[in-house]
Amino acid sequence: VSTVTCDMAMSVDGYTAGPGQRLDAPFGDGPVDRLTRWMIEAREDNAAEIAGILGAGAYIMGRNMFGPDRGEWDLSWTGWWGEEPPYQAPVFVLAHRPRPPVALRGTTFTFVPGVAEAMALARDAAGGRDVSVAGGAATVNQFLAAGLIDELRLHVAPVLLGRGERLFVGVPGSDLVPVSARQTPLVTHLTYRLPR
Amino acid sequence: VSTVTCDMAMSVDGYTAGPGQRLDAPFGDGPVDRLTRWMIEAREDNAAEIAGILGAGAYIMGRNMFGPDRGEWDLSWTGWWGEEPPYQAPVFVLAHRPRPPVALRGTTFTFVPGVAEAMALARDAAGGRDVSVAGGAATVNQFLAAGLIDELRLHVAPVLLGRGERLFVGVPGSDLVPVSARQTPLVTHLTYRLPR
Repeated sequence: VSTVTCDMAMSVDGYTAGPGQRLDAPFGDGPVDRLTRWMIEAREDNAAEIAGILGAGAYIMGRNMFGPDRGEWDLSWTGWWGEEPPYQAPVFVLAHRPRPPVALRGTTFTFVPGVAEAMALARDAAGGRDVSVAGGAATVNQFLAAGLIDELRLHVAPVLLGRGERLFVGVPGSDLVPVSARQTPLVTHLTYRLPR
Repeated sequence: VSTVTCDMAMSVDGYTAGPGQRLDAPFGDGPVDRLTRWMIEAREDNAAEIAGILGAGAYIMGRNMFGPDRGEWDLSWTGWWGEEPPYQAPVFVLAHRPRPPVALRGTTFTFVPGVAEAMALARDAAGGRDVSVAGGAATVNQFLAAGLIDELRLHVAPVLLGRGERLFVGVPGSDLVPVSARQTPLVTHLTYRLPR
């Protein structure tokens, strides 16, 4: 059985993206590059955690993480990542409006209307490897609230954003089991197991 | 010159106390005992951090951390801690309504109306040792927003509270400098320096 993981880059004050997310600023306004600097500028320091993110057997993401929502699908849009997305496993995108799959180098983006269907398809595709809930915050909050995530990996960047999209909104209280904590200069990695 | 420190016990979802704080539940409702278990049940594991909290030369706290606010002062109330409070240095309590100081074993609670006055008195009393902003969240947020805290020490308990009093409300964005991260079974200690 797959472990369902979730990696989220977060500020110390609990934001995963700034306000004003849009086409030319997918993480929104403010110093949000601080959230992901560790992945770009310090790959060696954080090699184990990056490998953990990239090692899943399937991914689930929200509609807005695939691209900006402007009503009808723009079929020329194939995701924020260009021809070579970082995902080297199938990606299931939660989207009410149907569209054909997008096949790119290493992955296929498949569009599914509901959480249960996405989870079933992702578990099947993962073949026993991890299923990763990739974001954004609203999608992760939905999965957390439904008790569908086994392991939460917070990557806490040393920044206060002051505003933006917040993790844990609508997620009820529960005990967590601490697994590990590791600090590198650009990020502190905190891993917790969640109750089923 | 004193370093201004702030130690806050916090849930993973960013709450420092539950909702419904009152006389018989100073931390509010919910599993808020999880926030402070490490201080009570695991003193050895967390000896360095506890020593850090108790080693300040003076403390500043909000009105509600001293006791429940019911309008006029109840002069028989001498704080939540009984005859032997944990503070072994002068404590300055922010309170608009004047009342005489409370002298207990090891400390004196002095009531001052404003942040600037509290800070000046605390720095003077600390004699070069740390000034600790002790809480609660609203008071800490006020000091953070004013740029008055040098070192923030978050003690993150492995629990989601889901609701309650939130740290960082109204605190603008800024870069932090990570100092240390250390995990023990009941808490993860994260220390950051803040810009002046």
